[in-house]
Amino acid sequence: MQTATLTQYMEECRELVIAEIERIIPQNRYQPILYELMLEYPRRAGKALRPSLCIATSRAMGGRLQDVVRTAAVLELFHNAFLIHDDIEDGSLMRRGLPTLHREYGVSIAINVGDGIFALCLQPLLDNMETLGIGKAIKILDMTSRMVRESVEGQAIELDWIRRQCWALRDRDYCLMAYKKTCWYSFVAPMLISGTIVGASRTEMAMLRKYGAYVGVAFQIQDDILNIVGDEQRYGKEMCGDLWEGKYTLILLHMLRNATYEEQLACVRTLQKPREEKTEREISYMYDLICRYGSVDYARDVAQHLACKAQRDFQRLTQSLPPSVHQDFLRAMADHVIERVR
Amino acid sequence: MQTATLTQYMEECRELVIAEIERIIPQNRYQPILYELMLEYPRRAGKALRPSLCIATSRAMGGRLQDVVRTAAVLELFHNAFLIHDDIEDGSLMRRGLPTLHREYGVSIAINVGDGIFALCLQPLLDNMETLGIGKAIKILDMTSRMVRESVEGQAIELDWIRRQCWALRDRDYCLMAYKKTCWYSFVAPMLISGTIVGASRTEMAMLRKYGAYVGVAFQIQDDILNIVGDEQRYGKEMCGDLWEGKYTLILLHMLRNATYEEQLACVRTLQKPREEKTEREISYMYDLICRYGSVDYARDVAQHLACKAQRDFQRLTQSLPPSVHQDFLRAMADHVIERVR
Repeated sequence: MQTATLTQYMEECRELVIAEIERIIPQNRYQPILYELMLEYPRRAGKALRPSLCIATSRAMGGRLQDVVRTAAVLELFHNAFLIHDDIEDGSLMRRGLPTLHREYGVSIAINVGDGIFALCLQPLLDNMETLGIGKAIKILDMTSRMVRESVEGQAIELDWIRRQCWALRDRDYCLMAYKKTCWYSFVAPMLISGTIVGASRTEMAMLRKYGAYVGVAFQIQDDILNIVGDEQRYGKEMCGDLWEGKYTLILLHMLRNATYEEQLACVRTLQKPREEKTEREISYMYDLICRYGSVDYARDVAQHLACKAQRDFQRLTQSLPPSVHQDFLRAMADHVIERVR
Repeated sequence: MQTATLTQYMEECRELVIAEIERIIPQNRYQPILYELMLEYPRRAGKALRPSLCIATSRAMGGRLQDVVRTAAVLELFHNAFLIHDDIEDGSLMRRGLPTLHREYGVSIAINVGDGIFALCLQPLLDNMETLGIGKAIKILDMTSRMVRESVEGQAIELDWIRRQCWALRDRDYCLMAYKKTCWYSFVAPMLISGTIVGASRTEMAMLRKYGAYVGVAFQIQDDILNIVGDEQRYGKEMCGDLWEGKYTLILLHMLRNATYEEQLACVRTLQKPREEKTEREISYMYDLICRYGSVDYARDVAQHLACKAQRDFQRLTQSLPPSVHQDFLRAMADHVIERVR
């Protein structure tokens, strides 16, 4: 599947999901700074990655579109609530090419909008009882509750590192954090929820989980790579924003591990400063070290390695499934994760 | 029922609920800045008002303790999540006699802890399916989803007033906001959830809802009165903190409505400033106006009027119920709401 087709598949899913989200969010009510703002991030040019994964997995395994689309929309809603709160927690300035919600409307309103999205996510999942039956609906609710917990635990790990200014971390520390904070809700949960909807076997569920975990962590690493080497216009976030924020990435950790003691000291001094006290020169210094120590190439290798594992698991999973455009999409995801930075 | 007995009843409920909360929150895991902090507010000397209302209503109507205690604990957990996020949104400094969570650990960690509590609330409510049956469990989940929505909508109304610096408000505007923001989750939801657990009739549910609404708004007004005239030590929040925060209260709105044009201008100028730019003198000025225009007495009258209505509804509700300590507790609540400021 070509990138163009991949993008088109996601665009189609996105349209379905936005329409569903507009049905979930109350309309025409006097709530000028609540419901309207819930549509702000979804309407910006998001990729709708999570619902696309959910719809593709479900349909590749023989599920019907109408059985998955509402739950897929809930995944996109959760994603947007996480984004709004994360942007505050990480002090992010830009999201999808525009200022973050808390910069436009203030932290108070942004926290409340995120909470409001959480509140709206429950009802559609309860509605699954009628369409999917009670057993499957409860399993999906269980997974959703686990999903939010994983994400919050991952965030807690990162916030704890920031609090203790802990920079001597191994790849496995990073991978565990990324797995919990982003990968679980973005890849593992969409996979497992789809598996539940179509009544997948235990073996199939295990393979879905592994595929999700590998692609998910690879995706996060590539996201961090794009932040360093990508194109601001196409990427939608500010370039090297991660360095300004002092965000934990595999790239930064690799550079710090390989730097001399003096270089490490200088970097940590910069990283400890609040964003507004960092200077262009300090960021350039870290950027140069990242280039010198080949940290981007290193991260790319790790992502590629994980994506290959994902492809292998995917092959095993799809052996017994009939070919379909949905299956092609999922296979292409693992390639795409590697391709999109080239 | 004397205040001492009332306090003792709530203290007993509190112990049950804290024990339950400790079972709900994962223990002994490497999450130093997540789960441990979820216990921070509950362990401070909170009143456990919401779970007490939930337990008392359920038991007064013939329900068993074991059928209600876990759900009561979830209500207390939600309350604590709301407090953590509200304290950030309102810029509050003190909570239950100690610094607010975000002042101790930073805004990022506090937002995440609140989100983590939301995540933990779902599972115990799903567990109700086994103990209460699927029908009641789903009704309770529905009410919980409505509860979070009401609270977030109430918060949105207040944040919108702040954003537009809107100070010319009627009592009914204030009451609607307080009903949605605080009263629904603190009084109406505990009542309705208890009614659901014991299988109350439609008429009983309607009376529970009305009792909750009247007591709840009266309670909020009394809370605002205590902030102006109470005793900091006993109250646990800073005195006149509401004026420093520029919080919307019936007292402040009454004073502004009755003040001269010049006085109004001076007050609004103060209220528009961020907390740290307000001076002791400006706060005293507003405090004096509140005394001069009898705004505290006015608010007390409104609260008393609402509490009387609550008592009447309660009488009708309990006509057919056998006498019990739980019923006494609920009756005493309406008195207590008025008494506690005297």
